[in-house]
Amino acid sequence: MKEEKIKIALDCMGGDNAPKIVIEGAEIVASSKKDVHFLFYGDSSKINPLIKNYPKLKNRYTIIHTDQEISSDEKPSIALRRGTQSSMRLAINAVKEGEADVAVSAGNTGALMAIAKIVLRPLPSIERPAIVTSIPNQKNSGTVLLDMGANVECDSDVLFQFAVMGHAFAKIALKIKDPKIGILNIGSEDLKGNDAVRSAALLIKESDLKDNFYGYVEGNDITKGTVDVVVTDGFTGNISLKVIEGTAKMVTELLREAFSRSFISKIGYLLAKTAIKKSTQKMDPRLHNGAMLIGLNGVVVKSHGGTDSLGFSNAISVAISLVKDKINEQISNELKGSES
Amino acid sequence: MKEEKIKIALDCMGGDNAPKIVIEGAEIVASSKKDVHFLFYGDSSKINPLIKNYPKLKNRYTIIHTDQEISSDEKPSIALRRGTQSSMRLAINAVKEGEADVAVSAGNTGALMAIAKIVLRPLPSIERPAIVTSIPNQKNSGTVLLDMGANVECDSDVLFQFAVMGHAFAKIALKIKDPKIGILNIGSEDLKGNDAVRSAALLIKESDLKDNFYGYVEGNDITKGTVDVVVTDGFTGNISLKVIEGTAKMVTELLREAFSRSFISKIGYLLAKTAIKKSTQKMDPRLHNGAMLIGLNGVVVKSHGGTDSLGFSNAISVAISLVKDKINEQISNELKGSES
Repeated sequence: MKEEKIKIALDCMGGDNAPKIVIEGAEIVASSKKDVHFLFYGDSSKINPLIKNYPKLKNRYTIIHTDQEISSDEKPSIALRRGTQSSMRLAINAVKEGEADVAVSAGNTGALMAIAKIVLRPLPSIERPAIVTSIPNQKNSGTVLLDMGANVECDSDVLFQFAVMGHAFAKIALKIKDPKIGILNIGSEDLKGNDAVRSAALLIKESDLKDNFYGYVEGNDITKGTVDVVVTDGFTGNISLKVIEGTAKMVTELLREAFSRSFISKIGYLLAKTAIKKSTQKMDPRLHNGAMLIGLNGVVVKSHGGTDSLGFSNAISVAISLVKDKINEQISNELKGSES
Repeated sequence: MKEEKIKIALDCMGGDNAPKIVIEGAEIVASSKKDVHFLFYGDSSKINPLIKNYPKLKNRYTIIHTDQEISSDEKPSIALRRGTQSSMRLAINAVKEGEADVAVSAGNTGALMAIAKIVLRPLPSIERPAIVTSIPNQKNSGTVLLDMGANVECDSDVLFQFAVMGHAFAKIALKIKDPKIGILNIGSEDLKGNDAVRSAALLIKESDLKDNFYGYVEGNDITKGTVDVVVTDGFTGNISLKVIEGTAKMVTELLREAFSRSFISKIGYLLAKTAIKKSTQKMDPRLHNGAMLIGLNGVVVKSHGGTDSLGFSNAISVAISLVKDKINEQISNELKGSES
């Protein structure tokens, strides 16, 4: 039985180093995955000369030319109105029209979400799609965190929907059998936090997810892996994610400094180097690149804007898994279940 | 010229390991600082037998007996009403009455702030006192972060007052000459964030602090040291602090794992050990223990509830510095300046 190829729409104008990292990222994926076809959306005069250097892509791509770009500081409302022929919009349109199975972009997050919402529409019963990803934790499973920045302010209904979607994402994308859900708060007692957080906890306790609800978790629980899914508003979620990145970077810098402190410590580093690289690899943000815009009729993956080709290839791999797992079909089923 | 002794009121019923860590912490401080006298508030039947084991404290303390304790999960409103003879309340009363220069407690944070507000009252023009501390950063100065959890929701006026107090704290407690202020947000563009954050930015831009205002900072900027003072609401501040603690712990665990991976990497660790300990010491939360309740007519310092005697001694040292620096006098002057 011949499987249908997965068609991936790639925005070749998003991020700091497009189109190079996009094409190079596709090349990395192409060398290990045979069943994919790439649709490159962007300026063909820039893509064509580059793409010849990547032999694995031969006969496995289509270029759809456009010279309209959405800049990284464009307001989402402007991007929506003026960017109808932009590489980002065309890539998402392709998902809508069934020409692609998934779209991947390293461009302006606000614009990407705004366009995805208008073009693909939210899933039934979802008020606000969110950005979701998995954060490295002390267990090896990863902690699902949402929302990571699409929705600055969230009421309890929206937080409840995040819980439902996060639960589905953990089951489907991370293969966690019976995911535990926590709401991010500043203490574990019932009276802690704001109204939205407290009411969301009540909504979960009254729903089908009640047995999966752990209760409130605190900031340190994200990396500890106390629960599988951490639910929070996009303001706190985005800041938490960046605090994790910043702290990991600081500790790494401190160690670099330690190892170069003396001749003896340099020798120590050389001996432990392989083990250190192996253990700290799971903190490499490139290997966690690729966040899903969850809660839409169609799969869209956001790559970090500043990533390199390895990072972008990881975002493409995330996109492929989500398509193979039929993520949206499964989320829709979960949502139907949780309504009953 | 003989200097007056600094009188420190210590709550001997707060935290996981009171009164032991409180007395032992005082002993550590007593061995290096001669000009301090300790007031121990708590159960004398527990304090008396312990205190004999600490020779440096001899003739340098007074025990004020009470058997009323505020538990760690007591609601602040209940603690206020029922805890009028509690060790925490009596310690703060002592500051109010001038019997002590400062109070230190490892007890229930919400109760401590509620009691401090009622007993000491906020400084003129301060609506909401905050919890402030310094976070280790990649520069060596430390980043002042407030609020760390006293005020879950904050409007723009409150955030502006945090900026004024944080600026004063950085100048006085951290000796930073011309502190730069940032507001924590999810992007650097003007349109990012919520109303409170955007309006607070405008208030700072229109104030005397305008030249000290950097703009918005993101989560990773806290440990990067982009600015000296990071202003945020207590919900986001508390979560950020705990995310930093959790991430540092995870990275440390990963390294421990790396070093024990093979015989060779164990040797590497032994060689680099001293350098590693020296470099990573600045991440030790005990050495950053001691957060000020800022914006009150009187100095109160909060210790982490789960700390040990070294950590508690650090909180006492913070308290002593704040008293010596006449922190509240200086903040009042700053506040008068910023009003003009």
